[in-house]
Amino acid sequence: MAIEFYWGSGSPFAWRVMLTLEVKGLAYESKLLEFSKAEHKTPAYLRLNPRGKVPTLKDGDFVLYESLGIMSYLDRKYPDPPLFGKTAEETGLIWRTLAECESYMAPAGNKVVRPIFFGKGLDQVEEIQEAAQTLRQEFKMIDDRLARSNWLVGDKISAADIGVFPLVQLVLRAAGKEAAQPFHLGFLPLAQTFTNVARWVERIEALPNYQRTYPPHWRQ
Amino acid sequence: MAIEFYWGSGSPFAWRVMLTLEVKGLAYESKLLEFSKAEHKTPAYLRLNPRGKVPTLKDGDFVLYESLGIMSYLDRKYPDPPLFGKTAEETGLIWRTLAECESYMAPAGNKVVRPIFFGKGLDQVEEIQEAAQTLRQEFKMIDDRLARSNWLVGDKISAADIGVFPLVQLVLRAAGKEAAQPFHLGFLPLAQTFTNVARWVERIEALPNYQRTYPPHWRQ
Repeated sequence: MAIEFYWGSGSPFAWRVMLTLEVKGLAYESKLLEFSKAEHKTPAYLRLNPRGKVPTLKDGDFVLYESLGIMSYLDRKYPDPPLFGKTAEETGLIWRTLAECESYMAPAGNKVVRPIFFGKGLDQVEEIQEAAQTLRQEFKMIDDRLARSNWLVGDKISAADIGVFPLVQLVLRAAGKEAAQPFHLGFLPLAQTFTNVARWVERIEALPNYQRTYPPHWRQ
Repeated sequence: MAIEFYWGSGSPFAWRVMLTLEVKGLAYESKLLEFSKAEHKTPAYLRLNPRGKVPTLKDGDFVLYESLGIMSYLDRKYPDPPLFGKTAEETGLIWRTLAECESYMAPAGNKVVRPIFFGKGLDQVEEIQEAAQTLRQEFKMIDDRLARSNWLVGDKISAADIGVFPLVQLVLRAAGKEAAQPFHLGFLPLAQTFTNVARWVERIEALPNYQRTYPPHWRQ
């Protein structure tokens, strides 16, 4: 039975899983849910994922949600190429990077990106500025790591890169919007603000099949 | 060289790692940092962990921070007993549970627990009530899972149990404080509110060496 992959355009968490599927060269049936039609809140979907979020993966009879859960499942089930490290040290550093992404980058990113995309709460200037400051510190930290290596952990692409990348792209897209201009977020142009992150983004964009994973509504 | 384990009393994230070390029967040198003396912000400690948080683990020359990173490292380096699943499905479910804990339980828990412990922001009643509601939903979800099984994933203790447990204990401790009474948080007595969680807590408290991991200042 084919893998079924439920996702939404622009969800960084779904994007992680899609990149994982593509990097591993796995065949899957794409189930694109339209958020605007609340297709992630239908009774049928809520039976797969009671949280009503994306992504969800169905592999035969096995259903799993939460992006990091799915990535760890896919890596153990389809180990080629391995994305969670070749040594205990690499494994630890990869999960450290993912944990940092979830605990620091994602919440700060959310506070910056949501008001800009949805036009709500743009008057919470202080909160947005504070979150942007945290976000710049997180970008600086990965920029420093990428000064020493092409990839966040080890000498090959890993789940650390795949997990962080979509959140970085989301921040960059928000930073380019007109609504972001008054905040002087300090991310663009990336090649000048975070040079090593800029090169790393290009490296990931050059992966085979990357274009397939690009959020469809971002092209419009 | 022995493992050095840097922790702070009452940090649920440090507690996870300590439980991991004990469940695996690993010898380690305990480095208890006093938050009140800012021992987690000294230049020497910041060289180990630039975020100035606990836990941090040093194993020979290898230094790692972020609790989930450390747990994944220890499991790969010292695989007996395995804590991240015997099958791809178990691995996926364990990381799903840990991701849910970080994304939903931990932020909500923080909003409830901090004002109660530190007496600051207790006037933010609406925010506390809202976070408590989220927290009860998360407790309900693990209670439902524990209705079918002794452990959160699979038929043995795993990183899922070890990762969630300290956060549950922190919430229960906060709920028992006098400052919590006006909020009617709805967690106590646990045996009546979340029966299966109560039995699971007892199961973990019965583990050999559990008492060694109990936050020292909670005994006072």
